[in-house]
Amino acid sequence: MKVFLIGANGQVGKHIVHLLQNSDEHTLKAMVRNEQQAETLRQSGVNAVVANLEGSVDDLAKAMECCDAVIFSAGSGGKTGPDKTLLVDLDGAVKSMEAAEKAGAHRYIMVSAVQAHNRESWKDSPIKPYMVAKHYADRMLVSSQLNYTIVRPGALLNEPGTGKVQAAEDLQRGSIPREDVAKSIVAALNEENTFRRSFDLMSGDQSIEEALKSI
Amino acid sequence: MKVFLIGANGQVGKHIVHLLQNSDEHTLKAMVRNEQQAETLRQSGVNAVVANLEGSVDDLAKAMECCDAVIFSAGSGGKTGPDKTLLVDLDGAVKSMEAAEKAGAHRYIMVSAVQAHNRESWKDSPIKPYMVAKHYADRMLVSSQLNYTIVRPGALLNEPGTGKVQAAEDLQRGSIPREDVAKSIVAALNEENTFRRSFDLMSGDQSIEEALKSI
Repeated sequence: MKVFLIGANGQVGKHIVHLLQNSDEHTLKAMVRNEQQAETLRQSGVNAVVANLEGSVDDLAKAMECCDAVIFSAGSGGKTGPDKTLLVDLDGAVKSMEAAEKAGAHRYIMVSAVQAHNRESWKDSPIKPYMVAKHYADRMLVSSQLNYTIVRPGALLNEPGTGKVQAAEDLQRGSIPREDVAKSIVAALNEENTFRRSFDLMSGDQSIEEALKSI
Repeated sequence: MKVFLIGANGQVGKHIVHLLQNSDEHTLKAMVRNEQQAETLRQSGVNAVVANLEGSVDDLAKAMECCDAVIFSAGSGGKTGPDKTLLVDLDGAVKSMEAAEKAGAHRYIMVSAVQAHNRESWKDSPIKPYMVAKHYADRMLVSSQLNYTIVRPGALLNEPGTGKVQAAEDLQRGSIPREDVAKSIVAALNEENTFRRSFDLMSGDQSIEEALKSI
């Protein structure tokens, strides 16, 4: 598959770039926000394109031309306020879905957040506005025509991946290295058992392949 | 109809309270956020209930028991930040839709904002985060099973209503007295031409009844 990665400069995104650069199955088109980020990626041999989630659906669709799949791994980031949460994590995400439909990129993998589907779990959370944005972006994706997978990882760690995870509709809170999230997303691209499915993802004791087949 | 009004203490809401208190066709159950607001309404003979859009769907559904219709006229207000926009204008609104479905209140009228359906019209707006929240609340309503009407008024004025409006799928920006918005909403309750429809609403030269039949 030719994979369009949104959020290639993010912490999970960088792992996905590395995996897709070394993939025999997939090729990568990496979207970043500015020319400097694109130039840095190009120097590593990455096919990079500049586009903005706060721009138009048409511009996003143009950037996605000829791609088969979209991975949404962008986030407004902890330093910005809830205005950017609305503009990026919700509206930006949904615009990328509409762009994917327009560009004919039918496969779409969303990096969401653990229990984003379950309001009760974040009713007292300090990041409740962020969870609301992720919740509705996910619901818009489910109601789209795209062949989606919604991956909802637990607390993200920077330590090296173990390759061992657990995946299920509902998991207790836990954590997972960003590298294992990235590996799970890349493994999900062609895993039919994840098509039009959503799941929580944590560190566990199954291989990624087993875990994705078990949900 | 027995009408459940969310945002009864708001500026449009107060007009709706007055109209429904004097209606031969409808009865009113007015939802407010705190006991003091409820007591003030009760002293005017209004059936008032305390509930919170930041609470649970179950609590909202319980408050709506025995109602036939819901009017959503609440807003986080200009003084609060985009966090409240996410929690009230988006998640609160959608929870009220889920509650209406649960309580069997099949008719639902949303007070939205002019051109909320059209991203291009608010791409440079200073209230873009608010427009994003209204946009997705409206889209969630359209995808619900409710018999909805989405009313998207122009800039809201406090001057007395004229009873003359225009209503259409797309209107140029304009303004309208809050009293005319309230009258249009109450008139729409039983107007079949507005069922599962959305429209912009401004001051114009048609009677409210004519305008609602013309969309």
